[in-house]
Amino acid sequence: MKKPPVVALLSSAISVQYLADAFETAQPGIDVRMGDDLGPLEDIDVAVCWFPPHGRLAQFPNLQLVQSLAAGVDHILADPALPRHLPLCRIVDDTMAAGMKAYVSWAVVQHHRGMKAYVASSDAAKWEEQPVVSPRRHRVGIAGLGTLGLACADALATIGYQVRGWSRSAKSDLPAGVTGFHGADQLDEFLSGCDTLVCLLPLTPQTQGFLNADLFAKLPRGAHLINVGRGDHLVEADLLPALASGQLSAATLDAFSVEPLPKDHPFWGHPNILVTPHIATRTDRLVIAQQTLANLAVLRAGQHPLNQIDLERGY
Amino acid sequence: MKKPPVVALLSSAISVQYLADAFETAQPGIDVRMGDDLGPLEDIDVAVCWFPPHGRLAQFPNLQLVQSLAAGVDHILADPALPRHLPLCRIVDDTMAAGMKAYVSWAVVQHHRGMKAYVASSDAAKWEEQPVVSPRRHRVGIAGLGTLGLACADALATIGYQVRGWSRSAKSDLPAGVTGFHGADQLDEFLSGCDTLVCLLPLTPQTQGFLNADLFAKLPRGAHLINVGRGDHLVEADLLPALASGQLSAATLDAFSVEPLPKDHPFWGHPNILVTPHIATRTDRLVIAQQTLANLAVLRAGQHPLNQIDLERGY
Ligand SMILES: NC(=O)c1ccc[n+]([C@@H]2O[C@H](COP(=O)([O-])OP(=O)(O)OC[C@H]3O[C@@H](n4cnc5c(N)ncnc54)[C@H](OP(=O)(O)O)[C@@H]3O)[C@@H](O)[C@H]2O)c1
Ligand SMILES: NC(=O)c1ccc[n+]([C@@H]2O[C@H](COP(=O)([O-])OP(=O)(O)OC[C@H]3O[C@@H](n4cnc5c(N)ncnc54)[C@H](OP(=O)(O)O)[C@@H]3O)[C@@H](O)[C@H]2O)c1
Repeated sequence: MKKPPVVALLSSAISVQYLADAFETAQPGIDVRMGDDLGPLEDIDVAVCWFPPHGRLAQFPNLQLVQSLAAGVDHILADPALPRHLPLCRIVDDTMAAGMKAYVSWAVVQHHRGMKAYVASSDAAKWEEQPVVSPRRHRVGIAGLGTLGLACADALATIGYQVRGWSRSAKSDLPAGVTGFHGADQLDEFLSGCDTLVCLLPLTPQTQGFLNADLFAKLPRGAHLINVGRGDHLVEADLLPALASGQLSAATLDAFSVEPLPKDHPFWGHPNILVTPHIATRTDRLVIAQQTLANLAVLRAGQHPLNQIDLERGY
Repeated sequence: MKKPPVVALLSSAISVQYLADAFETAQPGIDVRMGDDLGPLEDIDVAVCWFPPHGRLAQFPNLQLVQSLAAGVDHILADPALPRHLPLCRIVDDTMAAGMKAYVSWAVVQHHRGMKAYVASSDAAKWEEQPVVSPRRHRVGIAGLGTLGLACADALATIGYQVRGWSRSAKSDLPAGVTGFHGADQLDEFLSGCDTLVCLLPLTPQTQGFLNADLFAKLPRGAHLINVGRGDHLVEADLLPALASGQLSAATLDAFSVEPLPKDHPFWGHPNILVTPHIATRTDRLVIAQQTLANLAVLRAGQHPLNQIDLERGY
């Protein structure tokens, strides 16, 4: 009988202890290692990563798979010693998409309908209307039409918003009611019709700093920015002036260049910025374990794993 | 040439002045009257109503149509002198459904994901996670599967919630992923699976007081109540004890027995109640004018108007 795979859980950012149980559930008796306790490095078959310590992956001579525990892989590609000959995979999952749809739908309505003011009025015993503008008259643009961007486009269009999306390649199968734009050529046209802009791009050298003063200037005046991609999509220094000038009316941010966001950061407590602690969605721990083990089995059978990253494109 | 219709705008609750322009846009030169300035009562062809003063409709000898300016007609049926031989119609409109989908989606996520706490944490510079539970593990029930209930069921199922609905008659054409229940027999089973309960029933003698202590006891402990129907669906005195005991965890209320909600009402400022001032959605004023005039034309041609109320059922 083949011995069960040896899984290393690697993170320099969070505790990954919670994943050990999920692997045990997915395959009882499995050998899961983490922290400084990795045992003989030649044992490791697969590494499950979130900001893996740089250089670590290169130390496993028999590694077969590098698996992100999330949708993004920027935190793994940042390792200069990443063994690029190995397959690198990410998690794609319905449950994760549902969480993102919920967060983004909430954030769009929260600002568009003035819900923060209603919560304050309720606390202050004030019967006070905010302008009631129908979603049909509000345009939401989604930068990034991948698994998560498409899911959000579908949810927002079903609610009744005017939805547009932007991607690298042209799309032929957009959800009903969603208008597609693609490539650098169509970016300005896309941006000119975004009363709310949602960033759901992956972080790559091409998309780093995408959300900057230049881009803000191309949005309709008073637009709302929602960043649920990565912190480095946003040039943080450009945000406050855009809010101060009124070019942007609000920003809802779930990702930051440094996380947790430092205590003295000017985004905290800003009346027009909502900071959430990278919680838009989560990957189900059992799904992580199952997709990782399925990928390993598929690789051992000489086939292609699920949700493999194109290292050239970077996502 | 036929003279243009004479429209009376009747409300004892709000100013309906804003509708006069919409009628003028829909049919230039139209004769719109309101307030005490109705002229000869025999002129009036159609009455557009929101809480019409009791007895007034019975004074128009040549009235052909009673038109609600909203989705509900309870405010018209409350008039004991309502001329019940005349067609009574309500507005059904996509734009109105979109507003309701936005409000209800927001309210569900707001409580399910703990968004109020995130807003507070952002103001207080705290990087603090609320439990991240996927919509896939949260059950939303919608009482009333009419135009608005179905629209909300569709939006919530698209986001990824587990959605169930309850109506008087069985439904064969529910949106994908929505489970249907109907009638008194299936009410308890429906309620037992509602982590969030949304009331989108019309107000009738059968549904008055639907949201009461008995019903709350049949919900899963800690359920969230959203009332976007009418104030009289809720037995207001039963809500505070249900919140105090923890049987309900929160209530989001957009309609009240007395509106505006009186200054000294205990719902104001309650930490687990959100009061919004009947703004979940609005009917587009031009749609009101257009549907009213279209109904009148259809009636004059001897045909059936759009969205006519069944006076027996009361909705
Ligand atoms: N905040 C959170 O909790 C959270 C949770 C999960 C994920 N995320 C973030 O969300 C990101 C997106 O996830 P996903 O699963 O939807 O990714 P995905 O399926 O890989 O989709 C990426 C999309 O971005 C487009 N894109 C990539 N580079 C582009 C460029 N240079 N110009 C224009 N479009 C470009 C792609 O275009 P093509 O379709 O043409 O390839 C694709 O539509 C993740 O990478 C992660 O950073 C955040
Ligand atoms: N807060 C706001 O801003 C706002 C705005 C608009 C409307 N509303 C409220 O929303 C209500 C619903 O509007 P709608 O257009 O969706 O109404 P609708 O199309 O008339 O639908 C009513 C639904 O309720 C069900 N129903 C009625 N009586 C019932 C009973 N005794 N037991 C079980 N189910 C019953 C009906 O069942 P069947 O399908 O079997 O007939 C139907 O599914 C309006 O009446 C109004 O009060 C509130």
